[in-house]
Formats: sequence, C-alpha cells, structure tokens
Amino acid sequence: MGLLSPVWVGTVAESLTSDHEVAGAMAAFEAALSRVLSEHGLVAGAGLGAVDLDPRGLARGSVAPGNPTIPLVAALRAALPGDRAAAVHHGATSQDVVDSALMIVSSAVLGQVEVHLSGLAARLATLADEHRARACVARTLTQQAMPSTLGFRAATWLSGVLDALDAVRWCLPLPVSLGGPVGTAAAYGSAGPAVVASVAEALQLAAPVVSWHTDRSPVLRLAGTLTSVGNACGRICADLLLMAQTEVGEADDGSGGASSAMAHKSNPTRSVLVAAAAHQLPPLLASVAGSGAAASERPPGAWHAEWQPLRTMLRLAGAAAERTAVIATDVTFAEEALARNLATLVAAAGEDGRWAQEQTAHVGVWVDRVLARHAEVRG
Amino acid sequence: MGLLSPVWVGTVAESLTSDHEVAGAMAAFEAALSRVLSEHGLVAGAGLGAVDLDPRGLARGSVAPGNPTIPLVAALRAALPGDRAAAVHHGATSQDVVDSALMIVSSAVLGQVEVHLSGLAARLATLADEHRARACVARTLTQQAMPSTLGFRAATWLSGVLDALDAVRWCLPLPVSLGGPVGTAAAYGSAGPAVVASVAEALQLAAPVVSWHTDRSPVLRLAGTLTSVGNACGRICADLLLMAQTEVGEADDGSGGASSAMAHKSNPTRSVLVAAAAHQLPPLLASVAGSGAAASERPPGAWHAEWQPLRTMLRLAGAAAERTAVIATDVTFAEEALARNLATLVAAAGEDGRWAQEQTAHVGVWVDRVLARHAEVRG
Amino acid sequence: MGLLSPVWVGTVAESLTSDHEVAGAMAAFEAALSRVLSEHGLVAGAGLGAVDLDPRGLARGSVAPGNPTIPLVAALRAALPGDRAAAVHHGATSQDVVDSALMIVSSAVLGQVEVHLSGLAARLATLADEHRARACVARTLTQQAMPSTLGFRAATWLSGVLDALDAVRWCLPLPVSLGGPVGTAAAYGSAGPAVVASVAEALQLAAPVVSWHTDRSPVLRLAGTLTSVGNACGRICADLLLMAQTEVGEADDGSGGASSAMAHKSNPTRSVLVAAAAHQLPPLLASVAGSGAAASERPPGAWHAEWQPLRTMLRLAGAAAERTAVIATDVTFAEEALARNLATLVAAAGEDGRWAQEQTAHVGVWVDRVLARHAEVRG
Amino acid sequence: MGLLSPVWVGTVAESLTSDHEVAGAMAAFEAALSRVLSEHGLVAGAGLGAVDLDPRGLARGSVAPGNPTIPLVAALRAALPGDRAAAVHHGATSQDVVDSALMIVSSAVLGQVEVHLSGLAARLATLADEHRARACVARTLTQQAMPSTLGFRAATWLSGVLDALDAVRWCLPLPVSLGGPVGTAAAYGSAGPAVVASVAEALQLAAPVVSWHTDRSPVLRLAGTLTSVGNACGRICADLLLMAQTEVGEADDGSGGASSAMAHKSNPTRSVLVAAAAHQLPPLLASVAGSGAAASERPPGAWHAEWQPLRTMLRLAGAAAERTAVIATDVTFAEEALARNLATLVAAAGEDGRWAQEQTAHVGVWVDRVLARHAEVRG
Repeated sequence: MGLLSPVWVGTVAESLTSDHEVAGAMAAFEAALSRVLSEHGLVAGAGLGAVDLDPRGLARGSVAPGNPTIPLVAALRAALPGDRAAAVHHGATSQDVVDSALMIVSSAVLGQVEVHLSGLAARLATLADEHRARACVARTLTQQAMPSTLGFRAATWLSGVLDALDAVRWCLPLPVSLGGPVGTAAAYGSAGPAVVASVAEALQLAAPVVSWHTDRSPVLRLAGTLTSVGNACGRICADLLLMAQTEVGEADDGSGGASSAMAHKSNPTRSVLVAAAAHQLPPLLASVAGSGAAASERPPGAWHAEWQPLRTMLRLAGAAAERTAVIATDVTFAEEALARNLATLVAAAGEDGRWAQEQTAHVGVWVDRVLARHAEVRG
Repeated sequence: MGLLSPVWVGTVAESLTSDHEVAGAMAAFEAALSRVLSEHGLVAGAGLGAVDLDPRGLARGSVAPGNPTIPLVAALRAALPGDRAAAVHHGATSQDVVDSALMIVSSAVLGQVEVHLSGLAARLATLADEHRARACVARTLTQQAMPSTLGFRAATWLSGVLDALDAVRWCLPLPVSLGGPVGTAAAYGSAGPAVVASVAEALQLAAPVVSWHTDRSPVLRLAGTLTSVGNACGRICADLLLMAQTEVGEADDGSGGASSAMAHKSNPTRSVLVAAAAHQLPPLLASVAGSGAAASERPPGAWHAEWQPLRTMLRLAGAAAERTAVIATDVTFAEEALARNLATLVAAAGEDGRWAQEQTAHVGVWVDRVLARHAEVRG
Repeated sequence: MGLLSPVWVGTVAESLTSDHEVAGAMAAFEAALSRVLSEHGLVAGAGLGAVDLDPRGLARGSVAPGNPTIPLVAALRAALPGDRAAAVHHGATSQDVVDSALMIVSSAVLGQVEVHLSGLAARLATLADEHRARACVARTLTQQAMPSTLGFRAATWLSGVLDALDAVRWCLPLPVSLGGPVGTAAAYGSAGPAVVASVAEALQLAAPVVSWHTDRSPVLRLAGTLTSVGNACGRICADLLLMAQTEVGEADDGSGGASSAMAHKSNPTRSVLVAAAAHQLPPLLASVAGSGAAASERPPGAWHAEWQPLRTMLRLAGAAAERTAVIATDVTFAEEALARNLATLVAAAGEDGRWAQEQTAHVGVWVDRVLARHAEVRG
Repeated sequence: MGLLSPVWVGTVAESLTSDHEVAGAMAAFEAALSRVLSEHGLVAGAGLGAVDLDPRGLARGSVAPGNPTIPLVAALRAALPGDRAAAVHHGATSQDVVDSALMIVSSAVLGQVEVHLSGLAARLATLADEHRARACVARTLTQQAMPSTLGFRAATWLSGVLDALDAVRWCLPLPVSLGGPVGTAAAYGSAGPAVVASVAEALQLAAPVVSWHTDRSPVLRLAGTLTSVGNACGRICADLLLMAQTEVGEADDGSGGASSAMAHKSNPTRSVLVAAAAHQLPPLLASVAGSGAAASERPPGAWHAEWQPLRTMLRLAGAAAERTAVIATDVTFAEEALARNLATLVAAAGEDGRWAQEQTAHVGVWVDRVLARHAEVRG
C-alpha cells in the first residue's frame, strides 16, 4: 500500500503499474492472441469470456507454477466452453504473457513519463530563457568557483531532460513477446511472423524480429532509460537541495515540508523524495541487467528475478518525472541570496562586479543552443 | 498484492512486513515511548488512545512531509485530549519512529528466519549423515571432476546455512532509534540514556551507545545478513537445479511445477523461486549500503531510499529460508542417475569402481566436522 | 599487471585502455586545444613541446589535487617557454581533460568492439544458416522442453549481438568535454561553440550542445552499451557452458583448458572467462549510473568515482567481444549428443521422430528474419 | 599504474595488493603446503626452489587455463628435480591457491585497516572530548535544525568507526582454502583436517570446518566489512565536505587542493577522494555477493568474477581508512563560522543564546558513552 514509499504513493506511475493493471494487461494479451489466432484460422472461436481478475488470487496461484500465467489461463478457460477453452493461450508460453504484460504496462508508464518530462522541459526552457542573465555562483567540489547564471544552470538541467527524452524515444515501441514454449512459435507454423505482427499491432507494441525470451536487450534498454529519467530529475533536485540549504538559501522547491519536531523548519521534501528515487534506480538497473546473460531457452530464476525490480523502476522513474515537473513549476529563487553569495565569490577572487559580468557575458550562446535543441525535440 | 512476486507471496515474511505490521510497529514505538516518558516523569499521562491505523491513509499522508511518522502522530494526537496529545512523540523525531519500526519488523523476520534455517540445518544434517557414503559425481567448471558423496555435498550446504545462522545472530538484537531531532535526545536531558534503554527494553530491541541516525552500520549488517541467508539457500537450490536437469536427473525438489504449454514437463519451480530471490538480494544490498555515507545529522534522500529496499530484502530472504526448508524436506534423489553419472566419470578417468571408493573413503571426517559444528550451534 | 584478470589480459581492450593510452589521450586533448585556440587567435603560439609522459608519475601527482590533469598540465608547461606555457590548458578545467581522454579511449574500444561483434555476427549468421535444420533440444527451467534447431539458437544469439551493435552505434560519436571551470567556456567568449566544435573535430569526437560536466547521460549510455555487449556475449557463452556440461555434451568451445589437478578434464575456460566478464558488468553499470544525479557544477566525489569503473567496463566488454568472436569461430558441436538428447525428449513426450520434425518445420522463417536484419546492419 | 585512481595511489593498501604481492602469497601457500605435506609424510622432500615470480608472465599464462595457478605451479615445478616437482601442489586445486592468496593479502590489508582505524578512532575520541561543549548547528534535510556540539558530531563519527572495527574483527582470522579438486581434500586421506590446520597455521589463517569453495560466506563477510569501513570514513568526509562548503565554512580538511583553473579555490580533495572511494564500494559489494549462490563444486565464472572486485574493494577501503586518519589529524574548525551559523539558527527559532546552551547541556552524557566504548575496544 506504499507506507514505505512516499516516493511514488499517489503518482500516475503507481496506478499504471498496480497488480490490477498488470493482470489486466495479461488478460489483454490473451484476448488479443485469441482474436488474432481466430482471424488466422488457427483456432475456432475468438474472444474471452468475462472474468473477474482477482490479483491476490492470481498471486497465490502463481506460487506453485512459479508465475501468474498459469492461474490466469485456468481462470480464462474456466469461463469458456470446452472447445473455446482449449483455444485460450494456444501456442504461447507463460513468459509471453508476463513479458507482454510488462511491456504494455511499461509503455503506458513511458507515455506518461514523456508527458511529464515534456512539461518539465518546457518549464526549464522558460527558466533558462528568463534567467539567462541572472548571475549566480557556480560551485565545484563544494567551493564557490566562478560566476554563472541561473538560466545557464536551468539550460544544463534541460539538456539532461532532453537526453532522457531521447532515451525514452529510443526504447519505444517496446516489443510484444510471443515465442511459444521455446521461442520458435512452432504452433503457428509458417504463419508465426504474421501472428506475432498482428498481436503486436493489437497491443500497440512492436513485433520483434525473433523471440526475445533470452535476449533481454529490450529490458536492459528500458531499465537504462528509466535510470536516465531518474538521473535527469535527480540532478535537478540535487541542485535544488544544495540551493535550498539554510546557509545557501537560493531556492525554495515549494514543498513547505513540516517537521515532526521543529516548528521553524521547512523541509524541501519534494526534492528529497526525488533524490530518494534517483538513489534507488542504479542498483535496480544492475539487478535487471544481471538477468541478461542466462543460459537455455528460458532460465531458472534470472527471468523471474526481473519482474519486481522492473516494476519498482517504473514507479521510481515515473514518480521522479511527475514530481520534478511539479517542483519546476513551483520553485522560486531568492534574488538576495543569489546576489549575496555572488558577492562573496567576487570578493574572494579579488575582483569587482564587472568581472562577474564579463565571465557570464556569453552564456546566452549556450542557453540558445539548448533552447534550439528543445524546440527541435518538441517538434 | 504480490502478482509479480511468487517468490514471497504467502510466506511468513510477507505478512510480517506488511504495511499493517509496519504501521503497528510505529504505533508500538510511540506507545512504548509514551509509557516510558510517563514513568520517568517527563510527560504527564501515559499511553495512547485506540486508533484505527489505516496504512493507505498514512501512506498518502506521508507524501507531503516525506515520511509516514507525521500523519501517524497526527492520528495518535487526534485520539487524545489536548495535554496528553502534546505528550505523544515527545522528544522524538520522524526517523526514530520509522527506524525503530523497521527494526521491530526486521527482528520478527530474523526470528522467523532463524526458525526456518534451524529446521533446514537439521534436515541437511540428516541428509549429510544418511548419505555420507552415497558416491556421486562432483562437478567443476561444468565438467564431471572427481567422485564425492551426496552427504558431503549436503554437509557443505549445511556449512553455508550455519554461516548464515551465525550472521543472523551477529546482528541481533537490533537497536531502537531514539535520538530526537538531531541525535542528542536533548528533550530528555540527563535522563536520555535511561529513557532510550527503557524504550529499547519495552520493544525487545537493543539500546544503542549513541544515536545511529547517520551511522547506518546496523542496517548494513542486517542487509548483509539477509544476503547471506539468500546465498546459503540460493546455493542449495542452484545445486538442486543442476541436479534436476533432465540430462543429469539426480534430484527432484518436489515442486512438480506445471508448464502452461508442455504436459511432459515438471519444473523445479520451488528452487527456481529461491534462485530468483537470491538473484535479487545483492543489488538491494548495494542499494542499502549506498545510504551509509551521507552527510549531516539526517540526509536528504539517502535515508528515505533505505526503507523499501530493506523491506524487499526481508521478504526475499525470509521467503528463501522458508521455501528452502520445505525443499530440503521434500527433495528426493535418484540413485540410478547418481550411479550412472558416476560411471561416466570413472570411465573417463580410466579407472574402476575402487577408485571412486578410495577417493571418497575419508569424506566422513569432514561430514563429522560439520555435524559437530551443527550440534554446537544448535546447543 | 592483470594477475587477477585473465578475463582481459592480452586483449586489445587492455592495451587501448592502459594508463599510457589514457595519458596520451589527455595530452592529445591539450595539443588539440592548443592548436584550435591558436587558430582562433585566442592564444599566441600553438602546439605542445615533446614531453615524456610518465603515467606513474602523473598518478602520484594526481593524489594531492585529486585528478591527473594538474600534474599533466604542469609537465606540459614545463616543456615550453613562459608565454606559450601559459597558453596550455587555457580556458579548460581538469574535468575537460579527463572526460575527453576517457571518451577518446572509449571510442577506440567501441571501434574495436564493433569489429569484434561484426565478426562474431558474421560467424553466427553462418552457423544459423548452416544449422537451421539440425534438430536439438530446447531447454526451459532446466528441463528438456521442446525440439528446436541449432541454427535457430544461433539466430537468437545473433539477434542479441545485433542489439549490442545497435547500442554501440547509438552511443557513437562520444562527446568531447570543454566547458571550462563551470561549464560556460567563458574564456572563449562568443567563440565558445566554434572552439568546442573544432576541438571535437580534431579528436574525432562529437561537439555537445552544452557542457555535460554534470549531465552524465553520455557516460550512462556508454556504460549501458558495454553491459549490453557483455550480455550478448555472456548469453552465448552461458548456452555453450550448458551445452558443454559432461552430461549434455553437445558443444566444445575449443578451450581445452587444463586442470591443475585432474588430467581427464577439459575445461571450457574461454566461455568461463566471458561469463566472468558478463557477471562483473551490471554492478559496475550501477556504479557509473550512481554518479549521474549529483549536485553542483562539479560534484565532490561522484565524478571521481566514475573513472576506474568505466575503464574496467571497457576492458570487460572489449574482452568479452574479442573472446566470444574466437569462441564462435572454434566452437564445434557433437551431432551424436544432440541426437541422443533429442531422443530422450521425444521419448518423454511420448512422440516419435516426425514430431520433432513437425515442431521445427518452420524455424527457418525466423532464422531468415534474423539473417535479413544482419544483412541490413552489415550494410 | 593508478592514473585513474588517485583514491588509492601511494597507499599501503595499493602496495599490499599488488600483483607482486598476490603472486608472492600464492607461492607462500605452495611453500607452506609443501612443508606441511612433507612433515605429514605425504610427499617426499619439502620446500620449493627459488623462482623469479614474474606477475605479467603469470598473468599471460593464466588466460588459457582461466586462472594464474597453473602457470605458477608449472614455474615452481620447473625449478625442482622430477620427484620433488611432482610433490608441488599435491592434492590442492587452483582455487585453493588463489583463494588462500587472496585471504593472505586481505589479512594484511585488514591488519593495516585496523591500525588506521584505531588511529582515527583515537583522534576522534580526542576531538569528541575537546569539543564536547563547542556548540554548532546540526542539520537535517539540508536545513539548520537544532543546536548540537562539535564534540557530539565527532562522537557519532567515532561510533561508526568503532562499528567498522567490530566488523574488521568479526571477519578475522580469514580462512585458508585447501579442499582439493572437489572440496574433499581426498589426497590427504584421514590426515585432511590436520593438513589443513597446519597449512592454516603456517599462513596465519584459520582452518575452515570444511572447504568453502562454494560457500562464499567468508568473502561476503569480508566484502561487507570493507564496505563498512568505506561508510565509516565516507560519512566523516561527507560531513566535512558539507562543513567545508564556502557558504558554511566551518571546517578545512587540510587538503589545500589546487584548481587547474581557479587560483582563489582551495578544494577539499582529500575528503573528495574518500567520498569517491565510499561511492564505489557498495556496487562492488553487490558484485562479490552475487557470486555466492552458484552451482556445482566450482562454478564456471562466478568465482572468477570475484577476484578483481575484491582487490579493488581492499584498495578502496584501505585507502579510505588511511586517508581519513590523516584528515582527522589535520582538520581544523572555524570557530567564527560555527558561531555565525548557530546564530542564524537561534534567530530563526526565535530564541536566544540560552536556548542553544540548554539544548546541548547534556550531550556530554552521550559523548562519554562513546568514549567509554572506545576505551573498551582499545583495550
């Protein structure tokens, strides 16, 4: 129920990845397969009966066979007369159902991530443009380093977000899985590729060149993309957390987070949650990537170990994008603190105000390049 | 609800780590704190009112402040009259509540793990003793290597389980957290250590020497232990999966797992699920370990990133121990296959049956050493 | 010297990533920068003096300042007269030099990986074509599952290799880094983009839209690609290790690895080393990915933590590609074992030889699709 | 040569883990084994000839057989007459040599880590005692939170260091490996345990109850300990990096790190390097932990994947301990900044100076507890 995950509680990604949605996606796969096989004359009678999908029941039923497809297929078959029952799941294997369902759910999350990142990008473009000349301190290795501008910093944030959007688009569309027991889709004979293409189309997924049961490249690509999203958002929030420090005082992310013990505090909790999301993604990426070099046509455990980490990644990345878009809308900057900190730097460098101006005179060239890229990506 | 986690669905660890249990542990901490503070005369009136803990409500309420303590404290205070309401959570901070609750829940899981590992150890001791002279092939780098015995292999499994039991005992008892806003427990004045000791005792936890808000050693130790449990069980199941291969045919883990597509198959799904659990633990260990070097009295994100991975680890390790204990009880070995494979090795080595006997004549010495260690650990 | 790394000892990737090569790439960056700045009239006098790069000396000199740029620049300046000395490194920062050098070295390794993967792909295409009709057992969850063909399996291997090649091409060309102290390249004024473009061109790298000092997307993309290479190769070798098991006996990877203790053994050590490489890449990917959400214009530690893991990844992935290409050339298959194992499956399924033929009658359709993709990628 | 690893260049850990040391430890194992076997009458003639260990030659010779034992044994045998040559390595397997050598090297590093951590602990104890009453700001979630004292912070650092020392002592002594080809030490007959005990004693290692070829608990324990060391040091340096920020200005870690581009900067590079070390350890822990659930008496790859990550961990943890001990000796604190920042907090809380005094009046109780623990650990 999310008691330990304020990071993603209440987000779109949470609801798009619920057990109910996954079970629904599994059933959608079976329904599409049934229709397509009927259209190709490979089974008699199309479509599934109405079935009440009980995720907890499916979960309990998944323990003995090791995955939730078997109880699902049993439930679907129980709702149909004998001959049509036999047609359910024809030629497919458990992995086809789970993998396809995860790709359906992942596509939905990526779609939402794209929306949130696009909104975030637009907001950052505005910040970059508006604040292109607002001088501020740039920091390296914890020290005030040289003058920059707030708009330039926003432009580098935007650059990361555009990279994440590139990554999202690189891994779309995600593929359907329909290889049958050992990847050969043997039950469909020479119609195999056509059947796979039709099912893919019905589910708005891509048709793979060949079964990816053990070529987990699509999953690695997806997991890498989700980590990229987490980093693009996490970096913005890391900067805001630095700027929000009491002693720095340059930004307020709009959280107004209450403390359970100190009335005078206002915690930047929104950024904290995004930072926590970004922190969790890389090890999960390793987890998913670690399933990609397993033996045999379907390995004993490596595949089963992918599902839950992948769902967690979808939630973390989806939440990071959603929450950072809100933060970027609400964030405010403190002119006085920006100026005060810059004055400290100018003094330490033994310079005067003109120096800061000279140092930042041409940052607009870079801001414009990022804005141009944004305009191009936005189309 | 566990649709993607047959690994731990239905296990004791799942129920011991539910949001309901975590919320209950949080409330138990506040109740113990309230009683202890009253006994020490630090607040007037002890005990909490009856509150219906709604985990989903707490979860939703945790988003804005970044953790579930604040909505919990609000709920607890709402159930009491004003003066006693103010006494709730006195001197504590959010992290104290969440960390203590996680240690309560972790203690319960470790207790159960200890039970399951002890049962598993007893069963392996029996296998080691009974099969100490049953010759079999030992394999290295995928190749048949030299003769060994089934009992010796079981003894090495037992050795790993005893190591995991050592690790479990090494990290118990887990500590309570009660440092207050910045670790100094300032609200309790000179009574601080006594208050912490009393709360720890009430919750059957240890009293730390000083606040561990940012010294995450207890969590790293716990996470390392859970990984150790996963490896001890995962190794047994990896061996059983190898022995269960069709071409090897030496063991049957009692799963009888059905295939959604092939009637002639019987999948070792129990071992597969344990393998999947073991696969997921190391990256989660990295995740938790990665929170241990953060700055400030309570860092912005690193701590928040610990909760969910830790819970997942508890479930995976708990499930691995529970399921492997069942497997070890039900596993059967195929004498014929053991003999057939050994004959292949003997022939390849250009030897005869006496050679196998000679090579294994003294394995009992080692088996006895492991059994002696088991007897000692068992007490 | 590689005593603990037979995985990559003696490979092209090892030599392309030596400290000598990295130091050379750092110097090449400074030389290119010097020439370009002179061409743009930003400094007087182009080119560097002849300097003996002593990697160990640079390494020792890197401790105090935290990176090897400072001793390098000192060495380069010492070799030039005063005015020209001052021009060295003008406008750049330490991170520009190290990052650019790592991208130069990474480009060289990726180029070699592309060569090795292309050779591997060609060999797998031949295997897929030649063995498309050679029936064999396909295995799932450790059990013999259904008939397939050796050519189909090779085609799925090829599919993974083509995915890895896609990933390699996706992240090329890698970007130069030239942002100066805080990313703004302020020292170059309005000529910044032109200078960056010229230096990039000189080093055969891409010119970034804006400094990527803290947008680590290029590094995450690269690390993801290297993991993808490891998985594509690791999966092939995992399958070969399974097929090479004594009891399976279907393949020999050509290693003929000697045992230090057993004369009758022949270890598939080549595949073992590739498996070991694939095993190490995912956690390193997490390591590198974990540096991508850090604060400030250049963070204290996250960046420094990237260098060594990235180099290790280059070596592991490069070695995996090089060694797997050799394995694929030398691998032999045992017809008798393939037939014997298949007969076991046919009997267990209660079928006869025609069944195996029917089940694999159409795998050629899939093989052809993969070969067509290969032809397209090969160009 | 360490060009990309200023983190550990020039440290004791670097030299203790060089290829030369590892090769020497391998030879020491063979020498001890030879003597012990001779004493037990199991081979004729004890001791090895003088051999020039050429690590690079051994490394190159390790590729074909997959590990460096085989070329080492060949070199050792070549230096002896026929009958004594045959006695070298008698009854052992490659893994025994590599694992024992890694434990010898690890013991040396842990010994050094213990020295450095003990020195660090002593210094922190002094800081905790001296500064127990020096009020400062404690920070949570980036915000000034409540008053604390510098001595209390140092006490919590000390607490973490004592935990790390506990972990070091928990995993010592490390075990010798001497199981022979399949763990049964069959060549030694009933003398097996006595031989193992004698070799262990000769190498100052522990004698395992049974072979740990596939029970990797000792390695996981060691890797967990090294991560614990990294975190104990990393946390101190993370705090110092925060305190060293220009806007905070409370601490100077004594680095005086030069910038390649900004004369006014002084980078806390020592702390940066320790932070970089701490950052790299958790994923390597996952890497090593991921080898602990592999199948068979010696698995194809999982074991080979352990060596290099383990050595890297030894270097990172050893360097972190060594460098942090230096930092703790040299660190200075800025009274004025401590007071200025505290004044900001007092004002924000709407309090006056007495409040800060009240809030920290009893921190000495906690400091004393930590000092007492230190006194106990120190013995």
